[in-house]
Amino acid sequence: MRNILIIGAGKSTSALIKYLKEKSEAEDLQITIGDLKLENAQKFAGDHKRTKAIALDIFKDEERQAAIKKADIVISMLPARFHIEVARDCVNFNKNMVTASYVSDEMQALDEKVKEKGLTFMNEIGVDPGIDHMSAMQVIDRIRDKGGKMLLFESFTGGLVAPESDTNLWNYKFTWNPRNVVVAGQGGAAEFIQEGQYKYIPYHRLFRRTEFLEIEGYGKFEGLANRNSLKYRSVYGLEDVKTLYRGTLRRIGFSKAWNMFVQLGMTDDTYTMQNSENMSYREFVNSFLPYSPTDSVELKMRHSLKIDQDDLMWNKLEELDIFNPNKKIGLKNATPAQALQKILEEKWTLAPDDKDMIVMYHKFGYELNGEKKQIDSTMVHIGEDQTYTAMAKTVGLPVAIATIKILNKEITSPGVLRPIHKEVYTPILKELAENGIEFKEKEREYLGYNIDNVVG
Amino acid sequence: MRNILIIGAGKSTSALIKYLKEKSEAEDLQITIGDLKLENAQKFAGDHKRTKAIALDIFKDEERQAAIKKADIVISMLPARFHIEVARDCVNFNKNMVTASYVSDEMQALDEKVKEKGLTFMNEIGVDPGIDHMSAMQVIDRIRDKGGKMLLFESFTGGLVAPESDTNLWNYKFTWNPRNVVVAGQGGAAEFIQEGQYKYIPYHRLFRRTEFLEIEGYGKFEGLANRNSLKYRSVYGLEDVKTLYRGTLRRIGFSKAWNMFVQLGMTDDTYTMQNSENMSYREFVNSFLPYSPTDSVELKMRHSLKIDQDDLMWNKLEELDIFNPNKKIGLKNATPAQALQKILEEKWTLAPDDKDMIVMYHKFGYELNGEKKQIDSTMVHIGEDQTYTAMAKTVGLPVAIATIKILNKEITSPGVLRPIHKEVYTPILKELAENGIEFKEKEREYLGYNIDNVVG
Repeated sequence: MRNILIIGAGKSTSALIKYLKEKSEAEDLQITIGDLKLENAQKFAGDHKRTKAIALDIFKDEERQAAIKKADIVISMLPARFHIEVARDCVNFNKNMVTASYVSDEMQALDEKVKEKGLTFMNEIGVDPGIDHMSAMQVIDRIRDKGGKMLLFESFTGGLVAPESDTNLWNYKFTWNPRNVVVAGQGGAAEFIQEGQYKYIPYHRLFRRTEFLEIEGYGKFEGLANRNSLKYRSVYGLEDVKTLYRGTLRRIGFSKAWNMFVQLGMTDDTYTMQNSENMSYREFVNSFLPYSPTDSVELKMRHSLKIDQDDLMWNKLEELDIFNPNKKIGLKNATPAQALQKILEEKWTLAPDDKDMIVMYHKFGYELNGEKKQIDSTMVHIGEDQTYTAMAKTVGLPVAIATIKILNKEITSPGVLRPIHKEVYTPILKELAENGIEFKEKEREYLGYNIDNVVG
Repeated sequence: MRNILIIGAGKSTSALIKYLKEKSEAEDLQITIGDLKLENAQKFAGDHKRTKAIALDIFKDEERQAAIKKADIVISMLPARFHIEVARDCVNFNKNMVTASYVSDEMQALDEKVKEKGLTFMNEIGVDPGIDHMSAMQVIDRIRDKGGKMLLFESFTGGLVAPESDTNLWNYKFTWNPRNVVVAGQGGAAEFIQEGQYKYIPYHRLFRRTEFLEIEGYGKFEGLANRNSLKYRSVYGLEDVKTLYRGTLRRIGFSKAWNMFVQLGMTDDTYTMQNSENMSYREFVNSFLPYSPTDSVELKMRHSLKIDQDDLMWNKLEELDIFNPNKKIGLKNATPAQALQKILEEKWTLAPDDKDMIVMYHKFGYELNGEKKQIDSTMVHIGEDQTYTAMAKTVGLPVAIATIKILNKEITSPGVLRPIHKEVYTPILKELAENGIEFKEKEREYLGYNIDNVVG
């Protein structure tokens, strides 16, 4: 019997636990789910005989260490900043570990010790980061194996509402942590490289510098730049690539409308507003507009953002009921971002029957035998319901599959890892495809940025 | 003989030292000027017999303490963050102290000790802060003494180029630290209150939310909001005031043009640019614009900022030679703000015969005997030359005057102080007027924000 300890029974663990339960007889697994709240863990454990729920406070050293000691492998589904507590114990007690989070500096610092002990700490093996790494590296390695030279890599991921549940003017609902959506793009300029030219986009322009993409059968999307694309040069071995751009996908028109909030300052999360608790939605809006004793908030808004009479942007605002003088923000010492989130959550929360959708789009430009070529690779995955969401499946399945493969010694590389090597991504992508998470590739004429004719 | 120690012999000390020298016989002063570089101190000391230059490194405790022990009063003209080293010694050795800087939290924390020892630490007694406090409080106190109730206080200060030296399309030259101009307004939304409504302006909108002001004989100016106006409620005792707004003055059109840099992201000081040393001015501009293999930087710029063919904004850009492909930024690991500063300094540095100008504009709205009234108070001061600049005089003279008055026990209140009390501002403003730094008042009809008719 092999003991798997899952720490943190959040929304994203549903598909992970379902997969492990299904494999538990064949793979001889004993699954322990630990959460600060026992009932959270119990909800996922159910009455499955190979699955057990425990209360687990990771800040109680004895409790945490006792649980980790009993495990053969530990999956941490905690918020990223808490992994390190678990990781240190895994080093001490010689346990392998899996997370879906970015490798933190603290985690990276354990690399040497992890290697010394021959352990595997697999990180960034959810959807983004995770499936993006694996699906991109599979194509990049294939191009290189043929002798091709990478010229361009662009990669976009979006967590969206499924077309059949897409019922508002924004073509958007919260399918994950709303806070991350409200503050997305903040904290510094977006930086990337296009045809050898470094480009920088400040936050307040980010939502007006999108580009359009189309996926057959799913229509058009827009991509907006993530903050730091350049770190992928070293991770993917793309040091010489002319174009490297990573971004987030939304439905067409979302970013231009979202930009209204950005322009007014409503997404700011760095200060708290006076009297936020008793402030009406209308007062919230008005606090970002010039004072007038007579003009309406509506006209000031139209004027300030140059919204024409017949612009659909206006209807998007109205749909949010954002000019309502009677609805209160109701949050003490709220930042503008927190107040805005409150307003949006009222309209953008998934209805019980709504489904979510994960979309990924990679472009690979390369030169092979003197010819420039391009491959576009896309993946769309739609959730089953609000338990087995696309997000939970695309995060949880790669984690689950990697866990079994580490247990079975199919993945054996030691160290603090990302799933960027063939040994890792090949079997995992294969099994993901069997579970309906599959990429479609298309050869296209090279649409890169015309590197021979740079004027700029 | 009374010993005055001046620490820090920067540009702003010229008028301060001149004033003290002139008073040195009548007031029986011995003036010691200490600077990290002896030659800086010597330049100001000259061969005046009551003035002595010393080399003084404030981070050498013995050196600093020896100098402070010999003094009767210490003037710190160091950068604001270094005052605290001097202030602690002044407490220990029972010396009074004067600075032109904002009271830091560390300085404020000394208040109790300073009071216990009966010492006076006078801060914020330059121009802004300084003359603004004094000139505002004089009018506010007069209104209150008559039984008036303050409704509105707006206050604007600008350091500008004098009209006779105003020779570029921006109507602006650097008359003080260029860096402060380039990063002005950053670090958080501007917050103020108008007719009881709190208003917030994010940085990227700040330069488009200006208002116009006119001063007889000097033409029009524009005011843009400072970051935190609200802290003046407690400092000035204006807790119930309906409108409180503090701002910075520029010539008309400056802010709208400056906004081009803000929009592109050129004023960002939070990250360094790739290859900044060898980047041309043109490449600098291009790094904030979308990639194109064929379109010119100029057209991309016009398009991105929606600059029409016949817009003078364009000529303002051209005047800076910002599209030059041959001039290099020449700074290693420069932030966008540092690179922009480099470009601007080439064009906005004062010529040898240029003069600077300090402009201040206060509006006081109040109600007296059921009637609403307004007083506008303005001050314009033009520098003599590049040594006795308007900035150096308006900073240095109040410091010098306060120093003498503390020595002569005309100012005796103990504690960490600002010049907001009658005892302090009355004699100082009187003497400033004798030195040509004088406010003109005008009664106007109440132009406030129509408090009885708020719709918003």
